[in-house]
Amino acid sequence: MEKKVSVTVLIHDGFEETELVAPVDLLKRAGAEVRMISMTGERVLIGAHGISVVADALWEDIACESDTDCVFLPGGGPNSRSLREDPRVTGFVRRKSDEGKTVAAICAAPSVLEKAGLLKGRRATSYPGCLADESACIYTAEPVTADGNVITGRGAGCALEFGLELVKMLFGSGVSGRIAAETMYPHGGDIS
Amino acid sequence: MEKKVSVTVLIHDGFEETELVAPVDLLKRAGAEVRMISMTGERVLIGAHGISVVADALWEDIACESDTDCVFLPGGGPNSRSLREDPRVTGFVRRKSDEGKTVAAICAAPSVLEKAGLLKGRRATSYPGCLADESACIYTAEPVTADGNVITGRGAGCALEFGLELVKMLFGSGVSGRIAAETMYPHGGDIS
Repeated sequence: MEKKVSVTVLIHDGFEETELVAPVDLLKRAGAEVRMISMTGERVLIGAHGISVVADALWEDIACESDTDCVFLPGGGPNSRSLREDPRVTGFVRRKSDEGKTVAAICAAPSVLEKAGLLKGRRATSYPGCLADESACIYTAEPVTADGNVITGRGAGCALEFGLELVKMLFGSGVSGRIAAETMYPHGGDIS
Repeated sequence: MEKKVSVTVLIHDGFEETELVAPVDLLKRAGAEVRMISMTGERVLIGAHGISVVADALWEDIACESDTDCVFLPGGGPNSRSLREDPRVTGFVRRKSDEGKTVAAICAAPSVLEKAGLLKGRRATSYPGCLADESACIYTAEPVTADGNVITGRGAGCALEFGLELVKMLFGSGVSGRIAAETMYPHGGDIS
């Protein structure tokens, strides 16, 4: 029996589509209960390249409920800016990190973790030029970087590597290896 | 100025989410006009892992319009089965292939091209065990295989490689290389 793991994804309009969908796909394959949460008040969210995705629930529906093992923030410029300027989001990721839960962000979204104070002195990556102060963290420029409970990714082209590494953090390397194999991931089972 | 290229994506419920979204994302970044077409009569399509995507139009809206440079079929078991058993789809891909247009399918969806008679004697790949008769084509088992106007991919884990190769076929290696770079694709710019 695989461990039941809950993942909360916070999304504004302008999210990067592959960065949202590929990790959520891999997490669901691993058996995670993933909730894609709209922060806009609308169930339909519009991606940065015009692909629309239907959220599972609105923030208003889940605000009182704090039970999650992981918070994941997809990137995309407009989405990341809105997430960063949304105190509901910075507050939630800070609270979850304080509880020791896994916090994940890719592309421009690590800037949200930076604003929430979670990257200070920590190894992290992001899309080039997206952090306000790279020197405040140990900037790796890697496709994916995990440090403690925080995992960051570099861009849409690394979305599968990021998703597999997140699956590995939450479920172990046996599960991430199985999913790499079942999706015909062509770059080797061990992605870190 | 990049060439204006039109791509038609035919989709039933049960599509594999990453296999749909990652190639469409990369095609849109390349400047393609991508139309995601629902074959179900409903605008909201439900993916194999429960992620719902909003189609741009229904088949009924575009049936008379045949102008497209490329047809793309995402995979996913239930979607591929429905596409294969849908004579609107097999007819459309056969007609487009006869016109010399690009025909693309990934994972289980190359079985639709097989049923339409497009793989005979051609180099092709697919998810393992998805073709009715692998010996009728030159089966490569590669992540991505392009042969003439037909391109096939192996699974969700190869969705970015497949999408980049499709961009290369439609726009040239300069554009696919630019998109590999701008998405921080970590496996080298030349993906074939």
